[in-house]
Amino acid sequence: MDRIPILKMGDALLITIQVDIHDQIAIALENDLTQKIATTGARGVLIDISSLEIVDSFIGRMLDNIAAVSRMLDAETVVVGMQPAVAITLVELGLGLTGVKTALNVERGMLLIQNRLGALGRDRAHRP
Amino acid sequence: MDRIPILKMGDALLITIQVDIHDQIAIALENDLTQKIATTGARGVLIDISSLEIVDSFIGRMLDNIAAVSRMLDAETVVVGMQPAVAITLVELGLGLTGVKTALNVERGMLLIQNRLGALGRDRAHRP
Repeated sequence: MDRIPILKMGDALLITIQVDIHDQIAIALENDLTQKIATTGARGVLIDISSLEIVDSFIGRMLDNIAAVSRMLDAETVVVGMQPAVAITLVELGLGLTGVKTALNVERGMLLIQNRLGALGRDRAHRP
Repeated sequence: MDRIPILKMGDALLITIQVDIHDQIAIALENDLTQKIATTGARGVLIDISSLEIVDSFIGRMLDNIAAVSRMLDAETVVVGMQPAVAITLVELGLGLTGVKTALNVERGMLLIQNRLGALGRDRAHRP
């Protein structure tokens, strides 16, 4: 298995990382994701990393990349389920994942995306 | 990584199978799942197998087992995202997954669970 499945849930796409990520999988994931955003018109991308016990700079960069590409396609990326130890390590490594939003779990991540969509809808409604 | 993450989404739990399943992972998954149903009170279990290109009798049995255990705990199991080739192979092998409901994708699986909950709610409301 060399592809990570991308599931559509309402306005968002859900990705669960549970295999060891190497170059090829990361590239395939980015390609699949951009395709899927384009075909589904998804407005958010949820990436669950709850099964990762170690997040190194390679994965950090991949998450940043995914967030940047998704933003170009008008979809917000939220990383969910980060283990406390991973958060500590990331900060110690100086990898703040500044381009990426985070949420405690999938449900809160989904709320974040829905709230953003709600706010956008209001903005548009208020425009003359 | 020797654990498959279980994500809570509303009334349902979502499991994405993307690693090769062997005995130990299957046992860990069943244990984790029953724990999670008990602690969250989830009413449905969605198992996404879209990244599986082969489903053998071992995985078929595991899915049946999960469905049986979840049913004991009052949660409905729906297998989603089965690839067409997998469906053909399963039928040819005589593995009909009779104890398991299926749906084309996560969204339809979620609808199935919500409809069941709605029907249960109506039943209860009609009871004298």
